[in-house]
Amino acid sequence: MNLIKNRYKIVVNWGDCDPAGIVFYPNFYKWMDEAHWHYFKKIDQSILELKKQYKIIGLPLLKTSGIYYKPCKQGDTLEIETRLIELNNSSLRLQHIIYSKNLIASIGYETRIWAKKKGTKISSYPIPAIVKDVLLKYLKNEIII
Amino acid sequence: MNLIKNRYKIVVNWGDCDPAGIVFYPNFYKWMDEAHWHYFKKIDQSILELKKQYKIIGLPLLKTSGIYYKPCKQGDTLEIETRLIELNNSSLRLQHIIYSKNLIASIGYETRIWAKKKGTKISSYPIPAIVKDVLLKYLKNEIII
Amino acid sequence: MNLIKNRYKIVVNWGDCDPAGIVFYPNFYKWMDEAHWHYFKKIDQSILELKKQYKIIGLPLLKTSGIYYKPCKQGDTLEIETRLIELNNSSLRLQHIIYSKNLIASIGYETRIWAKKKGTKISSYPIPAIVKDVLLKYLKNEIII
Amino acid sequence: MNLIKNRYKIVVNWGDCDPAGIVFYPNFYKWMDEAHWHYFKKIDQSILELKKQYKIIGLPLLKTSGIYYKPCKQGDTLEIETRLIELNNSSLRLQHIIYSKNLIASIGYETRIWAKKKGTKISSYPIPAIVKDVLLKYLKNEIII
Repeated sequence: MNLIKNRYKIVVNWGDCDPAGIVFYPNFYKWMDEAHWHYFKKIDQSILELKKQYKIIGLPLLKTSGIYYKPCKQGDTLEIETRLIELNNSSLRLQHIIYSKNLIASIGYETRIWAKKKGTKISSYPIPAIVKDVLLKYLKNEIII
Repeated sequence: MNLIKNRYKIVVNWGDCDPAGIVFYPNFYKWMDEAHWHYFKKIDQSILELKKQYKIIGLPLLKTSGIYYKPCKQGDTLEIETRLIELNNSSLRLQHIIYSKNLIASIGYETRIWAKKKGTKISSYPIPAIVKDVLLKYLKNEIII
Repeated sequence: MNLIKNRYKIVVNWGDCDPAGIVFYPNFYKWMDEAHWHYFKKIDQSILELKKQYKIIGLPLLKTSGIYYKPCKQGDTLEIETRLIELNNSSLRLQHIIYSKNLIASIGYETRIWAKKKGTKISSYPIPAIVKDVLLKYLKNEIII
Repeated sequence: MNLIKNRYKIVVNWGDCDPAGIVFYPNFYKWMDEAHWHYFKKIDQSILELKKQYKIIGLPLLKTSGIYYKPCKQGDTLEIETRLIELNNSSLRLQHIIYSKNLIASIGYETRIWAKKKGTKISSYPIPAIVKDVLLKYLKNEIII
């Protein structure tokens, strides 16, 4: 997959910014969440399809983090480059690099689990081999700082 | 029900405001939505309970509107007074008066329907008599400007 | 201006939907707000430029409303067609028609004012003649239900 | 400061949850942001006051992270306990422990900087000694996992 070509694009809107005139930071996580749906679709593993086929509730979060290099403001076009950087038995880790005018504005991480609902509880399950095989092809071990 | 006593309170947060330093207006609708849950709970018709009992998906919206009298900013305590102003066969209309320091900051309206999912479609159904009887007790026809 | 060509497009995301699996309605207003920025840019009256030039704080809201015809869900592409339907001395009214697969999903209205900050107060001012002249060209009086 | 007594409380609302019926995770960051305003107010260092007095734009973010232990759903009351766990020349680090029914639902961290706007750029500055002295009193070095 050509990452550059498959970047997920968003434009920062008025309502995404706070009284300081810059992006209210939880929105970076909202966009990272959107980028993970986009990424799985691009690698032909649409999560909406995976939900139907494997009865998962999606890929809920175990851990997330973000580093902010430069503030973003209304009108900025952000491009998010997502890569799979870790693949475990029942979890995976994504890196999202957020570019603004080709400079890195922010980098974030999401650790997500393969999860089903068991009554009212959410539990992790092993990622099916057939899905894991596809993901393995996209696994990149180099983490860009 | 004593409306004053049952006002739904929120405090305006930094992330609720836009670069002009005032509430980003879709948040007024978010708070009106919260106020409608609060209102039904106060009149002993918890929507979470109604959902379980009658298999409705909640009370989705048909129409909404809002008028803005004064801008609100971070730190303002808003109190929302909700009243039922119309009750029809399968829909109802709520009025939300939003006070800031006991002056009216905004007034909004929500027309909601008694709705169930039918396959992928959402359809309205008559409000059950037992629920309607309770609602009738709280119906106020006076609309405050 | 060709409205069809200048529709503002968004894709409904996971985080825009509520536990019923449909768009949480305040997001329709968020998208209408985005559409009004888009509209003014398309008619060469960028609000960011107007803010700089005329010291307005933007075009804050006096009234808003929405009607919901069909529920929207994750993955739906929505196209918002904005038109100016009223132009007054210091205010204007926009109509936003939200299409999903070329069917109308929702119609909304925003009444906005030409406003400046005067100390801590926000007051309306007459729209400058030069701006009004441009807006007049785009004013359409037909309101589509 | 008695942390238990000063916990910042929120109730999870319908609109905070996603189609899986659990909190859409960026909202945990929204609540952590709210908790940091609350915390500074409780220790008599209202950020709104600090903004006026020192011309800072607030305490923008350098890094944030969160771990999710149990899913939260509509109606859950969450209590956020904030503590200062690191204090540097121009930055500080907060830990937010989010309780649901006195069990830990999530733990988050925010690294924030003392920042001013310099033209269009945001730069960090040393925290004034008088503020630092107060903060030092509240600094706790024990990090709870």
